[in-house]
Amino acid sequence: MKINMQINATHPTKPKAVILLSGGLDSLTCLALAQSQGYEVFTLNFDYGQKHHAELQASQKIAAHYGVSHRIINIQDLGQMGGSALTDKKISVQDHINSSDIPNTYVPARNLIFLSIATAYAEVLGAEAIFIGVSSVDYSGYPDCRPEFINAFSEVIKTGTKAGVENHGTQIKAPLSYLSKAETIALGLSLGVDYSMSVSCYRANDLGEACGSCDSCTFRKNGFESLRVLDPTRYVLNLI
Amino acid sequence: MKINMQINATHPTKPKAVILLSGGLDSLTCLALAQSQGYEVFTLNFDYGQKHHAELQASQKIAAHYGVSHRIINIQDLGQMGGSALTDKKISVQDHINSSDIPNTYVPARNLIFLSIATAYAEVLGAEAIFIGVSSVDYSGYPDCRPEFINAFSEVIKTGTKAGVENHGTQIKAPLSYLSKAETIALGLSLGVDYSMSVSCYRANDLGEACGSCDSCTFRKNGFESLRVLDPTRYVLNLI
Repeated sequence: MKINMQINATHPTKPKAVILLSGGLDSLTCLALAQSQGYEVFTLNFDYGQKHHAELQASQKIAAHYGVSHRIINIQDLGQMGGSALTDKKISVQDHINSSDIPNTYVPARNLIFLSIATAYAEVLGAEAIFIGVSSVDYSGYPDCRPEFINAFSEVIKTGTKAGVENHGTQIKAPLSYLSKAETIALGLSLGVDYSMSVSCYRANDLGEACGSCDSCTFRKNGFESLRVLDPTRYVLNLI
Repeated sequence: MKINMQINATHPTKPKAVILLSGGLDSLTCLALAQSQGYEVFTLNFDYGQKHHAELQASQKIAAHYGVSHRIINIQDLGQMGGSALTDKKISVQDHINSSDIPNTYVPARNLIFLSIATAYAEVLGAEAIFIGVSSVDYSGYPDCRPEFINAFSEVIKTGTKAGVENHGTQIKAPLSYLSKAETIALGLSLGVDYSMSVSCYRANDLGEACGSCDSCTFRKNGFESLRVLDPTRYVLNLI
């Protein structure tokens, strides 16, 4: 008994956290942050029928680098429904334009579905938190990246899950919500993040090379430039 | 132009509705109700790694009977996570007992995930409504069957989807929320529903035969008995 207590004192059980790890800059920063805060990290990514697999490869690489559990959930049937430039071959990804309209890269209910599956996983694991790297500052205008949505989703967990009813359930953490892209990168660099592992581009090729002109590339480029830090992203001219 | 207008007057466009069609008694009633209310119906079911496929077969049969579109979404990876007697071979389905505890047939975040995917589908279709056959009267005590959860989820749609932000989004309809099982059956019978197509049992065999003793069988049996109507369910002694 004494030995067990000593072992527990030396290796106390860490609280668990599920990280939505898309393989982009933001989710990589969230993983580094969660680990620095002492969580035992379980990462999730989704094969939802997206046109390119560069982010799936990036998320695997990142999870391996941090030595954490990684699951890729197959919901390719979501892409079959269409309705987004990221999944529907008939719709092309737009270059970045300054507009308040929601762009055609919006995937209907994507973060809602990802968070719902993460909620199930967190409940099975007994995880205290789910980290999602959404931001409402330098972002594509997707409604499911805004604090209003995250707050509403938190209520759903409290009312609709066993863990939520019995003890308030898993907490949704969106630590980048109010950070600019530059602030997110600065946070990650302070945690030793190697951003060359991440892929942000909406139309990356299978080598993980980026277009440089979509919304996501534009926010990333501007973030690094305003910090006067070199972005390790590799760019291509031959786009998919 | 005049001809087109005449055609439209004869065949006005129906509003669309997505129905979560598990193949059970409640979802079958919802489908009949939605169709009677003039909706063009699109049904969804899920292969989420459940132990038996009787309900998947039932939902296909029901959709074919009503001549409506039917999709089965593959999220078998959910079952791989375990945590429920309906998906985890190491956990047996309990017989019904009178208790306020949430039984081991609870599947973490199941209705949340189903509604989330239905929300995506509804947004792509431009559907006005999603029907879900939850009830908080004669039910297994699952938190995601209660009006509190449905109301919270409705807020998520308003804040987290393009359709929600632009025009309040798809409405979640849970018309059985406050109906007893007997009242649901009476409603269905008034709509001409043939309940022999539905399978309610948590441990049905592949022929769609029911155990007669799980929570779901018990609520169904009691509902038919209190109406003094014969339940067309077929029962077996050799359970899976």
